[in-house]
Amino acid sequence: DSKLKIFTCNSNPKLASQIADYIGIPMGESHTTSFSDGEIQVKLSESVRGCHVYIVQSTCGPVNDNLMELLVMVDALKRASAKSINVVIPYYGYARQDRKARSRDPITAKLVANLIEKAGAHRVITMDLHAMQIQGFFDIPVDHLLGVPILAQYFRSKQIQNPVVVSPDHGGVVRARKLADFLNAPLAIIDKRRPEPNVSEVMNIIGNIEGKTAILIDDIIDTAGTIVLGANALMEGGVKEVYACCTHPVLSGPAHERLENSPIKEIIVTDTIPIRSLNPTSKLKVLSVAPLMGEAIIRVHEELSISKLFEIE
Amino acid sequence: DSKLKIFTCNSNPKLASQIADYIGIPMGESHTTSFSDGEIQVKLSESVRGCHVYIVQSTCGPVNDNLMELLVMVDALKRASAKSINVVIPYYGYARQDRKARSRDPITAKLVANLIEKAGAHRVITMDLHAMQIQGFFDIPVDHLLGVPILAQYFRSKQIQNPVVVSPDHGGVVRARKLADFLNAPLAIIDKRRPEPNVSEVMNIIGNIEGKTAILIDDIIDTAGTIVLGANALMEGGVKEVYACCTHPVLSGPAHERLENSPIKEIIVTDTIPIRSLNPTSKLKVLSVAPLMGEAIIRVHEELSISKLFEIE
Ligand SMILES: Nc1ncnc2c1ncn2[C@@H]1O[C@H](COP(=O)(O)O)[C@@H](O)[C@H]1O
Ligand SMILES: Nc1ncnc2c1ncn2[C@@H]1O[C@H](COP(=O)(O)O)[C@@H](O)[C@H]1O
Repeated sequence: DSKLKIFTCNSNPKLASQIADYIGIPMGESHTTSFSDGEIQVKLSESVRGCHVYIVQSTCGPVNDNLMELLVMVDALKRASAKSINVVIPYYGYARQDRKARSRDPITAKLVANLIEKAGAHRVITMDLHAMQIQGFFDIPVDHLLGVPILAQYFRSKQIQNPVVVSPDHGGVVRARKLADFLNAPLAIIDKRRPEPNVSEVMNIIGNIEGKTAILIDDIIDTAGTIVLGANALMEGGVKEVYACCTHPVLSGPAHERLENSPIKEIIVTDTIPIRSLNPTSKLKVLSVAPLMGEAIIRVHEELSISKLFEIE
Repeated sequence: DSKLKIFTCNSNPKLASQIADYIGIPMGESHTTSFSDGEIQVKLSESVRGCHVYIVQSTCGPVNDNLMELLVMVDALKRASAKSINVVIPYYGYARQDRKARSRDPITAKLVANLIEKAGAHRVITMDLHAMQIQGFFDIPVDHLLGVPILAQYFRSKQIQNPVVVSPDHGGVVRARKLADFLNAPLAIIDKRRPEPNVSEVMNIIGNIEGKTAILIDDIIDTAGTIVLGANALMEGGVKEVYACCTHPVLSGPAHERLENSPIKEIIVTDTIPIRSLNPTSKLKVLSVAPLMGEAIIRVHEELSISKLFEIE
């Protein structure tokens, strides 16, 4: 009967302590700071010998700092004789570099998987990977959680009349299909086409949207370009109103401003990435993944069947 | 007969192109930039298939960004079928985290070695590692270059009269001994002692320094605390003047201001780390390691005997 301990670094300490609260244990005491020259220093203030430890750390921006914090923490826990080291990565950064899209591209999502394993992790718990294939980049178990049920619950509680779930591109149809099923709603797809090279894209909508309330869904909203173009196309196509949702609010560069000035009524996201903008859009609604992550950790720890939580997309 | 190519990321592009100039080849064309969310993007603009590539990149600050750039570049070169990937790391960051100084410390210098190997490097060329043991953290060949001959050449050209080489602590005596030998000068050591706990250190100087020109030498000058305290102690001890030198000018936090306001006459450093301060001390003299690095690369490439360059400390 080994003890469960939860540690965190600096990416989402708030989510980490909400997860610890859900599980009903105190946070493990540690301090991840920097030396004067910027090198990371990790101090573990309590013993982890023989413990099953869970490190909650997203590799969101500043991505290289957050990744290195995670790796150094794994190293410290390994050398302090933790029994198992489970890394909980609510948002897995570098996931969009998952293949050689052009010749001589790196495959950084695989590099990161290698680094995490080499540092000494025994298991990964993560959420809505940009590509499911990234699970296969690891040789250790990967538990993959889905954000769609959390988003669906929110929309159900809103009792939206006459909804249509919309995928902003063909890559996201499986995810949108799942949300549509949860909401008993029809599905539409935005079909971007470039009629000729160097001519701007045409947004063609497949599916019936007129007069409905559209719910755009994506895994990541980064600069918000795609989602705002999609929302504009939907409005032109005659929807009544547009909601947008995603699991991972990267929201870099012009994202907040674009969303604020868009026809989108509300943007529903989760706390896999903390909102760090000094001037965030007022349209954000943040749902917590702490209960889901907490439940996953409890079940992993109890070695219970976890088949229901970890559905395959 | 495979081609030699040199690439660089963003830590020291200037040093890299000086090395390429020394060798007499153009820089390999690549672009290491960031996406909007801060994730690193590496683009190789030329083929490396079958080539022996050398990546020049120090892991100085911003250390995690520079390290990750190096790793992603190695990944890209590996997947682009380079024949051998040789990483030239003029300054090896995280070297001071080379042992468990306190219980539950990580050993980040070893972690970094593992990461570099796992990414796919075949060889490391580096300089004045903070601890020689770090060579043993790698399972691939490590060529270890020394900065002392470069520093010695400068002092010889200055024709300093009546010099004494001073080690700022006991850990640096071997390095100071080597510089003293090059300069045919005597050696002194600053012996820090804490008479009682919570009483400030006493600087005791071992060796004859009176009336001489002191040359303080260290591997790294970081916040410059040690070196400035040493210089003050030497002045009080009756030296005529003080020079300071090191291979790696980390110069973080208050370093430039401390050096500027110290009795040190001139600070001689190398370009393993570029000087990035907006307000650098006027006392800096920067010597280039490009010829040394270039020669090392040529000899490695030619598979010549390199025993003279890579002396063991
Ligand atoms: N952090 C990033 N920000 C923006 N684009 C990226 C990022 N990482 C990878 N990409 C690019 O996004 C594309 C992959 O996205 P996707 O087609 O949605 O899987 C590739 O062309 C990548 O070069
Ligand atoms: N980047 C850094 N800046 C300042 N101190 C450090 C750094 N990295 C490690 N240290 C500390 O420096 C000591 C090792 O330095 P040394 O005794 O000179 O090998 C250890 O106590 C480390 O905790």
